[in-house]
Amino acid sequence: MAAISGVLAKEQLNIVSLREHVDKGENRFFIRIEVEQEAGAPALEQKLQQVLPPDAVITVNPLPEKKVVVMVTKEYHCLADILIRHYFKTLGAQVQCVIGNHSTLQDICRRFDIPFYLVSHEQVGKADFEQQITNLINKYSPDYIVLAKFMRILSPDFVAQFTGRIINIHHSFLPAFVGANPYRQAFERGVKLIGATAHFVTNELDEGPIIAQQIIPVTHSYTAADMMKAGKEIETSVLAKALRLVFEDRVVLYRNKTVVFE
Amino acid sequence: MAAISGVLAKEQLNIVSLREHVDKGENRFFIRIEVEQEAGAPALEQKLQQVLPPDAVITVNPLPEKKVVVMVTKEYHCLADILIRHYFKTLGAQVQCVIGNHSTLQDICRRFDIPFYLVSHEQVGKADFEQQITNLINKYSPDYIVLAKFMRILSPDFVAQFTGRIINIHHSFLPAFVGANPYRQAFERGVKLIGATAHFVTNELDEGPIIAQQIIPVTHSYTAADMMKAGKEIETSVLAKALRLVFEDRVVLYRNKTVVFE
Amino acid sequence: MAAISGVLAKEQLNIVSLREHVDKGENRFFIRIEVEQEAGAPALEQKLQQVLPPDAVITVNPLPEKKVVVMVTKEYHCLADILIRHYFKTLGAQVQCVIGNHSTLQDICRRFDIPFYLVSHEQVGKADFEQQITNLINKYSPDYIVLAKFMRILSPDFVAQFTGRIINIHHSFLPAFVGANPYRQAFERGVKLIGATAHFVTNELDEGPIIAQQIIPVTHSYTAADMMKAGKEIETSVLAKALRLVFEDRVVLYRNKTVVFE
Amino acid sequence: MAAISGVLAKEQLNIVSLREHVDKGENRFFIRIEVEQEAGAPALEQKLQQVLPPDAVITVNPLPEKKVVVMVTKEYHCLADILIRHYFKTLGAQVQCVIGNHSTLQDICRRFDIPFYLVSHEQVGKADFEQQITNLINKYSPDYIVLAKFMRILSPDFVAQFTGRIINIHHSFLPAFVGANPYRQAFERGVKLIGATAHFVTNELDEGPIIAQQIIPVTHSYTAADMMKAGKEIETSVLAKALRLVFEDRVVLYRNKTVVFE
Repeated sequence: MAAISGVLAKEQLNIVSLREHVDKGENRFFIRIEVEQEAGAPALEQKLQQVLPPDAVITVNPLPEKKVVVMVTKEYHCLADILIRHYFKTLGAQVQCVIGNHSTLQDICRRFDIPFYLVSHEQVGKADFEQQITNLINKYSPDYIVLAKFMRILSPDFVAQFTGRIINIHHSFLPAFVGANPYRQAFERGVKLIGATAHFVTNELDEGPIIAQQIIPVTHSYTAADMMKAGKEIETSVLAKALRLVFEDRVVLYRNKTVVFE
Repeated sequence: MAAISGVLAKEQLNIVSLREHVDKGENRFFIRIEVEQEAGAPALEQKLQQVLPPDAVITVNPLPEKKVVVMVTKEYHCLADILIRHYFKTLGAQVQCVIGNHSTLQDICRRFDIPFYLVSHEQVGKADFEQQITNLINKYSPDYIVLAKFMRILSPDFVAQFTGRIINIHHSFLPAFVGANPYRQAFERGVKLIGATAHFVTNELDEGPIIAQQIIPVTHSYTAADMMKAGKEIETSVLAKALRLVFEDRVVLYRNKTVVFE
Repeated sequence: MAAISGVLAKEQLNIVSLREHVDKGENRFFIRIEVEQEAGAPALEQKLQQVLPPDAVITVNPLPEKKVVVMVTKEYHCLADILIRHYFKTLGAQVQCVIGNHSTLQDICRRFDIPFYLVSHEQVGKADFEQQITNLINKYSPDYIVLAKFMRILSPDFVAQFTGRIINIHHSFLPAFVGANPYRQAFERGVKLIGATAHFVTNELDEGPIIAQQIIPVTHSYTAADMMKAGKEIETSVLAKALRLVFEDRVVLYRNKTVVFE
Repeated sequence: MAAISGVLAKEQLNIVSLREHVDKGENRFFIRIEVEQEAGAPALEQKLQQVLPPDAVITVNPLPEKKVVVMVTKEYHCLADILIRHYFKTLGAQVQCVIGNHSTLQDICRRFDIPFYLVSHEQVGKADFEQQITNLINKYSPDYIVLAKFMRILSPDFVAQFTGRIINIHHSFLPAFVGANPYRQAFERGVKLIGATAHFVTNELDEGPIIAQQIIPVTHSYTAADMMKAGKEIETSVLAKALRLVFEDRVVLYRNKTVVFE
């Protein structure tokens, strides 16, 4: 801390906000500092590197707008929320394109002048399907890929290409109800709360590092369909929150967890 | 509905509150009615039975205070909350005695003049241990047995004696983190919310019908111990809520679920 | 209750859901019943009227889609949410047109093919301004007028034309921070929660019957601008909830309060 | 920051947790640092003072247990919660005595071996009443005075003696429903949420700096009495939270606000 703040003081960079986290179990120290002035990134990184241990991971981020590709299937709520925020310039990221495995959401993208690519999973093998998607993504080189209710499971090979860069919204309070039909599972179990989880995607299904979670109360009077309907509201809101946190560089990935400097 | 309200009108019983639930999947109809006047229970039950299908389950409940036996281990928070509400007559039930497998909570019971029985699980077989508890419970004939952080797993034989009458507080948002050390599990998984669940006990571990659930947010800065500490607050509050609902006859058990008429 | 359910039974109308409320202070009984079959509205109303007291207010509502006119100023979040739900047919109402006193939100309406009328409050008197709005509204004869962040105070004469039909979203947890700049007021007061309130509009500023309220936590680190930004999220969500409740005929207005049959 | 962390590094004090806040409007910088080792308080304060501006307020706090006097009237819930936590050593403070203007809560204090002083407000003038209380408090020299549902308004003279040291729980979501009978006010207004506020007491009624606030949903079916009953649950919980924050030295008072380093 003394080393870092010494460098910042010397560079006359005023700290606007500072959040830190000591993980004793892992013996790691995490810190996020916002300074008032624009800092020359490479020079500052070098100066910090000189005063920190060799294995320190340093990122000086001038907060440029992130670029994102969004993947969808048929459900509109998360995508529409992203498109609206993007259109009104409050998303904090540029939506480069939308890839859907159904054409359902093509028209809403057209209305916002966002390119929509239909890549059907039907009548092609999984490898081909994912290759088409990879080609599209590579064309755009996004910082992040947002699975906004994309309902196909992606292969380990696909995920491995974009480690720590795929964000998914899962329609349950993980780790409860991993896998398919979580609302049906929740209904059968008779839970009194349902949830949604935004997380980074890794190769273990629904096991990636959690960014944000939220719940809403339900009662015995909710059918599985009612739960799904109610759940969409928090899916939208928890994904929006996770994206804001990620786009503002507030989320640090470490092993299978996140440090979230809200 | 017409049949029931017809009987009530004929008996000149004014409805104060009515809640119903139609379960289409199970083809069952649930209803809870509060009337202003005191109703002669057996006569009214008979009159309702005459106008309803033969398999209708009818309970006319003059809301006598329930009697409960509480079982504990070492953690105080749920028991203390029950003792305080009992002492100030806001529990809605009479605490007959407390059974503990450690002596830790003996003194707090003494301070409230509640009999405390120490039944150690050490140096006896499980069958003997449970038999001693059964004997105590049978001495008191409680309506309900409340497991207020009782940390031993009860055998199917024990549970079978008190079907639908044992209420447990589980320190996680079931069905996430079934079993031992849920806070450790939650910490390892990096969740952003932790929960507590009050449920009826059945023979499948942590699988009984859920009465109430609640969550609180946690962050990366919580250790497993911090989560446990924070969790105790909602364990206390969710058990208190579940007991209130049960003691006010607002909870109907049906198969593996509850209908809760709040 | 017996009278009503007797009529429904005779008409062979199956009750899907029933919620009632006894207001002892006002000596009124409120009830909302959903039946499975389509009911011939006028005939059923007449039959119910025959068995109920003369001052009973009876509405048999075949749940046609409500028609709404939305009024806005510059903020997009509530309007965009309404337009999205409307476009995907989950609003439960038909948006007939949008009236704005600024042109900021004209383009988003155009993208969804919704007529937008600019009625500026500048360079006209208040009476003229409101007359222009009234003329537009009368052209469409909406069931409800939704003030989705419309930032002008409407005169008693205007409001009187649409009693019980104007729904507003207020950016505070009423009755705290009535009037202008509630986020500034909240910041000055150092509150730890901020809220939003959806309510029917009456002639007393911010004093109409409340339909729904919601809050989110804030901390000392929030500026008034941060509070406003965070507040928009719950404004959107609480207005969406209130509109759903109203459009599903779940809200009964009585004096200065609402009975909400969720 | 550089100056402070430089001193800590020189003293070989490891930072366990650090939270800071820049208040641009007030041009003030707030920081709370927890270090692993025990620090010699006076020496460290002096060293920090040397590197900081002359008007910096520095407190090196070895976290000794705070001492508190609790004041009550008739309602038990907040006091009982404090007594329980005190008894089980999780309050983080030592309860020296309880002062009540009714004898209702005398017995519960006796059961926990806590001195209870009855100081009736009847048949004495306000000045006398407060003088008796002041005498008792001065006898104990507490760090904090907790008004755990003490229902008399204290005079400016009384409050002035204990500036920044009196903590009150108010039974509403301040600043809504200032003054008497907030639940009656909330009922009349038809709100859909009720709240509780823990705050430091100043001479303006219910206007002191807010420490913590919480709400719960209510519906049209709640009478004022039901709201009061439901409200007690959050009063208990929000006061417990505020006390924990204050006793852990996480709350900094500045003008009419608090900075809360959770």
